[in-house]
Amino acid sequence: MKNTQILLPERDLPTHYVNINYYLKKYLGKLPDPPIHPATMKPIKPEELEVFFPKAIIKQEISLEEKIEIPDEVREIYKMYRPTPLIRAKRLEKYLDTPAHIYFKYEGATITGNHKINTAIAQAYYNKQEGVKRLTTETGAGQWGTALSVAGKFFGLKVIVFMVRVSYDQKPYRKIIMQIFNAEVNPSPSTKTDFGQKLLKQNPDNPGSLGIAISEALEISLKDKNTKYSLGSVLNHVLLHQTIVGQEAKKQMELAGEYPDILIGCVGGGSNYSGFAIPFLIDKIAGLKPKLRSIGVEPKSCPKMTKGDYRYDFGDTAGKTPLLKMETLGHDFIPPKIHAGGLRYHGNAPILSFLNRSGITEAKAYDQNSIFQAASIFAQTEGLVSAPETAHAIKAAIDEAIKAKKEGKKKIILFNMSGLGYLDLKGYDDFLQGRLI
Amino acid sequence: MKNTQILLPERDLPTHYVNINYYLKKYLGKLPDPPIHPATMKPIKPEELEVFFPKAIIKQEISLEEKIEIPDEVREIYKMYRPTPLIRAKRLEKYLDTPAHIYFKYEGATITGNHKINTAIAQAYYNKQEGVKRLTTETGAGQWGTALSVAGKFFGLKVIVFMVRVSYDQKPYRKIIMQIFNAEVNPSPSTKTDFGQKLLKQNPDNPGSLGIAISEALEISLKDKNTKYSLGSVLNHVLLHQTIVGQEAKKQMELAGEYPDILIGCVGGGSNYSGFAIPFLIDKIAGLKPKLRSIGVEPKSCPKMTKGDYRYDFGDTAGKTPLLKMETLGHDFIPPKIHAGGLRYHGNAPILSFLNRSGITEAKAYDQNSIFQAASIFAQTEGLVSAPETAHAIKAAIDEAIKAKKEGKKKIILFNMSGLGYLDLKGYDDFLQGRLI
Repeated sequence: MKNTQILLPERDLPTHYVNINYYLKKYLGKLPDPPIHPATMKPIKPEELEVFFPKAIIKQEISLEEKIEIPDEVREIYKMYRPTPLIRAKRLEKYLDTPAHIYFKYEGATITGNHKINTAIAQAYYNKQEGVKRLTTETGAGQWGTALSVAGKFFGLKVIVFMVRVSYDQKPYRKIIMQIFNAEVNPSPSTKTDFGQKLLKQNPDNPGSLGIAISEALEISLKDKNTKYSLGSVLNHVLLHQTIVGQEAKKQMELAGEYPDILIGCVGGGSNYSGFAIPFLIDKIAGLKPKLRSIGVEPKSCPKMTKGDYRYDFGDTAGKTPLLKMETLGHDFIPPKIHAGGLRYHGNAPILSFLNRSGITEAKAYDQNSIFQAASIFAQTEGLVSAPETAHAIKAAIDEAIKAKKEGKKKIILFNMSGLGYLDLKGYDDFLQGRLI
Repeated sequence: MKNTQILLPERDLPTHYVNINYYLKKYLGKLPDPPIHPATMKPIKPEELEVFFPKAIIKQEISLEEKIEIPDEVREIYKMYRPTPLIRAKRLEKYLDTPAHIYFKYEGATITGNHKINTAIAQAYYNKQEGVKRLTTETGAGQWGTALSVAGKFFGLKVIVFMVRVSYDQKPYRKIIMQIFNAEVNPSPSTKTDFGQKLLKQNPDNPGSLGIAISEALEISLKDKNTKYSLGSVLNHVLLHQTIVGQEAKKQMELAGEYPDILIGCVGGGSNYSGFAIPFLIDKIAGLKPKLRSIGVEPKSCPKMTKGDYRYDFGDTAGKTPLLKMETLGHDFIPPKIHAGGLRYHGNAPILSFLNRSGITEAKAYDQNSIFQAASIFAQTEGLVSAPETAHAIKAAIDEAIKAKKEGKKKIILFNMSGLGYLDLKGYDDFLQGRLI
């Protein structure tokens, strides 16, 4: 019998980030539309982004290189927890009585329990290199804020987090973790920014959203040249950093002797799913794997991929970012208070939006009850309590495995188990008590 | 530079549990005193334990075999998460500026985030083999209850947990996890047993203790022949199962090209530390590593090793267990409400008590503030938020590394990172807010 856990030695840790834009240009002859400046409506100039980001990150954001070398110092930290395992979900397969093989890339094995730390380390490093002292950021469920707090601590940067108020109230433990790493954590909307004050005046009970928290974090970074802004998803450089996930998974699938028929990941801003899928998708783009399917999964209550427009929109609520060409529900959309806080974002990564709209990838949406039910089955068979965000991917993987059974086909399904849910148990409780609608 | 994570392939997963009693008899010519029956004061007969445990487990409890084969079905489940990594704590070494090499065996990488699942799987398997339908158990901080709930679910056994009331109230999330795996969770003392009712009548605010919870779990198992009792530490068979941790660590240290000078683990009932240390300690017992030091670490507020007696005592509060020869604070000792709930137990494993009293191992005690401070340093350097129990081991490891620096000696320190603390963050919060005494 094949191994259950497929482990890679440290020497197989990726040395480069993989840039999908190189492949899109080379094989499709086209690229996602560039960010534009809201005042001039012209493509933004790299130097106009320097108020937010260090130069090295801006360079990555617009790069058309095939791959970008990972700095030694960043790789040394990755080695603390990477390569992460790839696991064959044998017990889940047996439970579903499916001919499908179900694999998952286990990003719950990182030091913070999910994939966010992969880009946090890189971003903290590049900022430190250019003399930045403080990083501001937003966080939804708290995973990203935690990751940046850890990475900031590693590189001696102060981290200021704006945490969506509904999550701040629902998940007090997340705040404590960030404080262990000496981060400053503010509920958003907060009284710390002009934008937050304005919103609280209109509605003191504003539950917040990722879009609002981004606006607040941006406002702080604009006020001080030693403070830069750090984003946990959406942008090209974040997806780029997450390609280490897919590169490892690809090597591990080779060791398993299989190539996936279907890739699956959950989508908030799009980085975990894209970083996981891109190293495989370049095979499809190059014409080597034309039948490869790739499914991004979102909540029905925040359906930018399945029901959004594809147009230029702001990345934040206040309209302080460049305009991004993306799948969006509108930058003033405030998603319902679902437990998958990391998926409560109005827009989608420009790269992933482009892939979806080009027919390279596809999308699916599920309601809360169905994803917690899937996550419970996964827990009871594989022993792992997933984050509510990840539960969306699990639901799609289970559905595809059931479909494979009905069709009598041995499909190879691979999903990104992007994170654990030990700090998100209230959602499970509501599910178990029948309180979810 | 040597690898940071030292991984073992699946084929190196141990095939046997290692029995220290074989080595004690062979090399020292003596064994820990046997359990005795409180009525007759004579050594308990194996069949007298059958009301609590399946025969296979009783056989292991009294075994003098050198090693006991791990059943295939148990190994298949171990393969879902084992071998766990061994990690060189390079960033912690650098922070401490110590010549010592600090390694930790990372049991936080198991499916439940700590070592408890290792014995839970074995115990559930042996019970299932003998037709048992239900398992009752106690849990302190909730780690053991969670592990048995998962293992019970894997083998189709109903699990009934008595959770120490102070932890039940402090850690509501733990209850939810157990419920995801369909376990029944009762705060202890509970109204479900005669003993619980009696205690609640005397004091409705009784905070509970592991000793009380064990009494309640035992009472339930005594009332129904299809219900057996399962213990998460203390007994020989539990320590035996945990030797897979030390066996892996030993192979991994070989790969690292070093042999530890000092082993360190935290002690509640003694199983994580013993299972981790035994595969090394047999080298000391056999005279191969006479200078090997091994330190068990306990809270100052529950100091059975450093201040307890070594005598026969009950394992539970009500006095329903056989009498065990052990280091004890007395079976009616109710420890203060410290955050390290898993260390709030009055007694110590008979094997570990024997090793301590024979001078093979040593013991140390720390207060709450110092262990949370150590855990914060560990988090900030290695990125991992440890359980408060594990923090005791971390504190001792840091102290030994500082001592090595003062003495200018390159010591090889290896500790068992027995578990993560994502569900125990209130302790960190109290520490950060200066509320700990």
